[in-house]
Amino acid sequence: MPYIEREKGVRIHYNHYGHGFPLVFLHGFSANAWLWVYQAPVLAHKYQCIVIEARGHGLSSKPLKGYSIQDMAADDAAVLAALGIDRAILVGNSMGGMRAMQISLDYPHLVAGNVIISSATNLTQFTSAASELITSLQNGYEAAAEDMVARCFSAKTKREKPEVCQMIKNNFLNDDGFPRRVAMACLEDPNGVWNWNISDRLKEITQPTLILVGEEDQATPVAANRFLAEQIPGAELRVLKDVGHCYEIEQPLEFNQVLEEFVAQHGH
Amino acid sequence: MPYIEREKGVRIHYNHYGHGFPLVFLHGFSANAWLWVYQAPVLAHKYQCIVIEARGHGLSSKPLKGYSIQDMAADDAAVLAALGIDRAILVGNSMGGMRAMQISLDYPHLVAGNVIISSATNLTQFTSAASELITSLQNGYEAAAEDMVARCFSAKTKREKPEVCQMIKNNFLNDDGFPRRVAMACLEDPNGVWNWNISDRLKEITQPTLILVGEEDQATPVAANRFLAEQIPGAELRVLKDVGHCYEIEQPLEFNQVLEEFVAQHGH
Repeated sequence: MPYIEREKGVRIHYNHYGHGFPLVFLHGFSANAWLWVYQAPVLAHKYQCIVIEARGHGLSSKPLKGYSIQDMAADDAAVLAALGIDRAILVGNSMGGMRAMQISLDYPHLVAGNVIISSATNLTQFTSAASELITSLQNGYEAAAEDMVARCFSAKTKREKPEVCQMIKNNFLNDDGFPRRVAMACLEDPNGVWNWNISDRLKEITQPTLILVGEEDQATPVAANRFLAEQIPGAELRVLKDVGHCYEIEQPLEFNQVLEEFVAQHGH
Repeated sequence: MPYIEREKGVRIHYNHYGHGFPLVFLHGFSANAWLWVYQAPVLAHKYQCIVIEARGHGLSSKPLKGYSIQDMAADDAAVLAALGIDRAILVGNSMGGMRAMQISLDYPHLVAGNVIISSATNLTQFTSAASELITSLQNGYEAAAEDMVARCFSAKTKREKPEVCQMIKNNFLNDDGFPRRVAMACLEDPNGVWNWNISDRLKEITQPTLILVGEEDQATPVAANRFLAEQIPGAELRVLKDVGHCYEIEQPLEFNQVLEEFVAQHGH
């Protein structure tokens, strides 16, 4: 069944496709499973593809609180345990990358490698403070969401793939899939997407890690990703032209090739 | 839960998003829920979006037989019954359009209108015989699948959105989501996607029906769709430039606008 039950009746929704070495796809803040449209169904004929929707997102439960990255990482690990998967490559975008890094620390035996797309830790160091974002969401949710999404995509993506930008924006606006109170709870949590800070623990992540960030990413800027790559031992950073915050859906064929090369090297 | 149980332990997988007037998304042969990436998550903040995966496809069960369009339509109606939905607009692509037409005949009270994208009845009248396709699939499944998918997309889509073509092709090649024996069973069924023929019953479809077909569709050619529009009372046909067989993912923003106009008129 595509749900697991967590504490206090919280259900985590996932989908599981295909056979082969497991790849685990972890979306970011406000997003959901649909983000991986050019990975899960495309790669499922060669790999197991597991797509997990974080609590508060997509078809997973929306508890009032519990939105720390540690909570989400524990949910993700519980899905893998339920599926009997004991080793996987984690593919995380933004908050999904945070989930991957936290899983690498808390459940290191599970992780054969990380492919992190546009992420960060201690995000407020690199972008405007969470309090500003919370204020702007409170003052006009739709405009703030639109502004936030605009910062996610390259000029080329906005020009050539407006449907991608629309999809990501509307994920934010769907109060059923991503309630406003969840957005606020994620931002206010002392270990949530905005405040989560493992700067001094990045050196403990010893799994092979590839960090991919778009040159035009204004959500988790290049500097935030460079910091991750500098602190995680042996991590590789690639900065991508004409890409924003979501390489996997902005340039899917190119991203898939990079991912498959990583899996060929580390997927065992 | 996102499954209903049908006869003999057959489970049909669906997802249900949002609130408002129900829109039911029905994919075609070899496809699955991911086809609707630019509709379900995009429109869910205004409408209920129900995405159903046909038996043999996606995360639904893969019985040995039962692949008539009538069987699939009964599955779809059973999902709506389980959700307590008694009136909806059906949005069907290709075999999904066949499912919509069959639901319109067998469960007419359920259908407020049909938006049919590139479909047909008595398909062998308009394209090469099923036997030819079966032979080519038997002789080289991957090449035949590739050829079939190539016929689905416009030159513009192939040039600008190769990731869409890759996704549709790999759905076909994923033996876990769409086993080869299911492809064969669908093609061989006397009322399956290739042989289903309701030519003389199209006049009984009295629900508002819009038929959208790409000028470059070589899978269900314009003539096959013109025949539907001529036979279904009051149906409107639109032939679209630079589009192939999958308007909803080839030109999603334009398609969504057309769909929303239809829903504004008939979604009650």
